[in-house]
Parts: sequence; structure tokens; C-alpha cells
Amino acid sequence: MLDWVKVNEQTKLWIMEAGERIRTSLKSTLEITTKSNKNDLVTNVDRETEQFFIEKIRTTYNDHRILGEEGGGDKLSDVNGIVWVIDPIDGTMNFVHMQRNFTISIGIFENGIGRLGYIYDVIHDELYSAFKGHGAYFNNKQIKYLEEVPVERAIVGMNPIWLTENHRINPKILRPLIRDVRGTRSYGSAALEMGYVANGWLDAYIAMYLAPWDFAAGWIIIEELGGKATKLNGEPLSLLEKSSLFVAKPGLHEAILKNYLQEYEEKK
Amino acid sequence: MLDWVKVNEQTKLWIMEAGERIRTSLKSTLEITTKSNKNDLVTNVDRETEQFFIEKIRTTYNDHRILGEEGGGDKLSDVNGIVWVIDPIDGTMNFVHMQRNFTISIGIFENGIGRLGYIYDVIHDELYSAFKGHGAYFNNKQIKYLEEVPVERAIVGMNPIWLTENHRINPKILRPLIRDVRGTRSYGSAALEMGYVANGWLDAYIAMYLAPWDFAAGWIIIEELGGKATKLNGEPLSLLEKSSLFVAKPGLHEAILKNYLQEYEEKK
Repeated sequence: MLDWVKVNEQTKLWIMEAGERIRTSLKSTLEITTKSNKNDLVTNVDRETEQFFIEKIRTTYNDHRILGEEGGGDKLSDVNGIVWVIDPIDGTMNFVHMQRNFTISIGIFENGIGRLGYIYDVIHDELYSAFKGHGAYFNNKQIKYLEEVPVERAIVGMNPIWLTENHRINPKILRPLIRDVRGTRSYGSAALEMGYVANGWLDAYIAMYLAPWDFAAGWIIIEELGGKATKLNGEPLSLLEKSSLFVAKPGLHEAILKNYLQEYEEKK
Repeated sequence: MLDWVKVNEQTKLWIMEAGERIRTSLKSTLEITTKSNKNDLVTNVDRETEQFFIEKIRTTYNDHRILGEEGGGDKLSDVNGIVWVIDPIDGTMNFVHMQRNFTISIGIFENGIGRLGYIYDVIHDELYSAFKGHGAYFNNKQIKYLEEVPVERAIVGMNPIWLTENHRINPKILRPLIRDVRGTRSYGSAALEMGYVANGWLDAYIAMYLAPWDFAAGWIIIEELGGKATKLNGEPLSLLEKSSLFVAKPGLHEAILKNYLQEYEEKK
């Protein structure tokens, strides 16, 4: 049987080593290319960091499977066994433009159930982590259970693009929510924003089209803290598909779903 | 004649001392009240920090005037002589909800012309500063002149509320801009976001209704770097009134003004 305590310690060491490599790489010139569209950026550092983790995992756990953003892992049609879900750099646009506010995001699942989650803010050296059943941590400090908050005192993370005409959601659905909440923020990294929800800095986070590697770690961390992570229609997330994402504190999740998101229909 | 080199050194020391006091205060319970509306927060730390600066300035420069957010300074009907424009904590909602991403913002003007500007990110211990004619700095490192960037590669800071129905701007004006740029961010502190523009992390920043203490420091820093800071209609900012704010890199400012903001009319 897998020793999850050992996996947890080992993975944290790998993340720290990868973080150090990324910080060092910032002194060199980045090779920047684009993927699906002109704003979907990828760099040599994204690819090298994914490769770093793949080599470590393959060597140490040869029966584990890997789902990674840059495609160096496996193609999955089921979630059986142990699956590592890796985004080597979540927030690549921030990485390129700001050299900050990007994260390493790793979730480790057993038969589809999240066991360990890590979001590492590389520049600020801040690790959000969770060990299912054993709590969530910000660096070495245990994070308290998330408390309920009413809509009018909530700060919501969301990309403003979803308030303009787009292919994913009728912008009229989200505008009333944005008017009713206390504040809105947008940091450009789904994983980081889920870390902020974990830490209580944001109360909710909404995104319209994410891949499993964007939300895998945050999903585990948020649920360990009593929060909720679903699609925007309230349906469960899946490691096998891209989807919308709606993360929120307990109570707030239900209130926003019921009062603002009833008309939303998930698109494939 | 005022020795600006000395004022610069002295002010930086005061800011560091105030920052240390604020960091210490985070260990105590905040007293939070509201001002103009339920989301316009103020704490005892805002007031105490303003008072700290007022006492220092009154003692050291008894002929200088002070314009401060919390009202402890002077009422100004002109900008003659030396005027300190102080926001003791810009981003109070972040201060209360996140205990980070708030700044001390100070601009020092002589007959309406900005001489010294400071934006201090208290938690990250990062100081953006400018000394008119002598350059702008991020901590002790001189910041390079801002370079031109086209709209489609720009990252713009803006509160998403301006894309929904509101009293300040027809939301249809800003939506096309948000669709055309590479990305949008929102950090909840005007001064901090102006610091990010200075550092090239954002390419532009738009806000609809700010007071002089929100933009005074950033205005000086951005102009020292060759960027532009105006109202959304392109008119000059004033220390004597609240207004909209449009900050951008050279070239980008003109392009956005011409292609997106022509229909905007400033409201009083």
C-alpha cells in the first residue's frame, strides 16, 4: 500500500527543487511560443518543469500515471489507480509579463479521489497544500475551516472577460453578481486564486474553461477546508474533461448557485 | 531652498518606519468601520498611519501642507507651495480581507508639480519611488523607461464593475477594449496597480473615480518613466478633485484614447 505520508514529504521536496530551478531560470532569456491562440503562452520553463516532475515520478512510482499540461504525461480515458495531475506553471502569462503570480500546481488522485494537493507560489515561496483527512496548510501553518460569508461581503475572483460578449457564458448572467458582491479581483492564475480562496483572501473564484491541471490541486485543498468546487451549474468536476469552475466558501456556494447561476448551461 | 535629496531620504525612512508599524499592527485586532458606503472600509491603522506622517511632516516642515485620505491634514483650494498627498493605506479592503496587497502612497508636489512619489507594498517590502528628473526605482534598482506595446499585447488593470451597469461610465465603452487586450487583472489597490504599470507588469490601468491621494504618487512615478497619467478623456489630473484615471505606457495611452475612449464623458 502506498505510504501517503512519504509521498507527501517527497512531493514537497520536489516542488521546492522545481521552484528553485524556476527562480534561477528567470535570470536567463525565456523562449516564448504560443499554443491554441496568440494569448495562450508557453515557455521552455513550462516544458522543462513538467519534464522534471515526470522523470521524478516515473523513477520513483513506475505504476503511477501522469496528466500534465504540456503533454509529456499519459493520455487518460479513466481515473483508475494513482494519477498525478500537473500544471508546471499555472499563470504562464504572469510568468512572462510579471515574473510573479504564477504557481506550480499538483494534485494526486487515487481512483479519482484527491489525496494530496499543492499550489506553490514560486516567487513568494508560499505553499498551499492539503492531505486528505489531515488538513490543509499555508506553508507550515494549518488553515482553519472556511467560514460562511454572505454575498454582499464576498470578494470574488474572476476574469472580467466573462462580463463581455464571449462564447462560454451569456455575460448577463455574471453581471448582477459582480454588482452585488463587496469586491472583485483578477490575478490571472486559477491555481493561485484557488489558493487565495483556501486562505480566505478571496471568498469565491469563477472561471469558464479550465483544464483538470488548472484546478486539480485547488479542488483537493478547497474540499479539505469544507469549501466547494464544482462546475458553474453545480455538477461535479472531472479529471477527464475541461469545464467551468466555481469555487466558494460553504453557504456562499449554494447562495450564488441558487440566486445567480440558475440560467447557466455548461457548454462542451 | 528645500533640499529635495534630503526630503527623499527622510521620507523613505518614515515610510519604512510606518510599514513596520503596520506589519506589527496585523498581530492585533483591527477596528473596522465604514465611510461613504458599506464597502468603503477604514480601520484604526489607516488613521494611526496618517497621523504618524502628519506629525512627522508638521514637526520637520512646518510650512508644508498635507492632503490626506483620513482628513487629518489641510483643506486645499489651491496647490501653491509644497503639498504632501498621503494615502496611509491604499487598498483598505485588501488590508482587511487579505492582510496584503495594500500600500502606503505618498506624493510630494511643489506648486502643483510632482517632485517625489512613493508607493510602498508593505507586506512584500517593495518600494516604488520616483525623484523628478532623477529616475524611478523599484527598491534600489532603477526602472527602465516604459516601452511602447500594442493593444493586443497589453495587460490592463481594471475593476470589472465598470463592465456592468454603473453611474460612472457606459459599460459598453470598456467592453471592446477588454476583449481586444491580451489580459485583464484587478488587484484592488490603485496605487499598487500604478506601481505594477511602472514596473511593466501591467501595461495600463483604468479607474473611474479616484481621489488625489489614490493617484498622486503613481502619477509622479509613471510620468518619470515616460508613461502617461490622465483622466479617461485625456484631460490632466488635478490634486483638487476626484476624477477618473487612465494610466498607460507611451503609445498605448494614445491608441486606447483614440480607439476606445472617444465616447467617454467625465462626470463630476
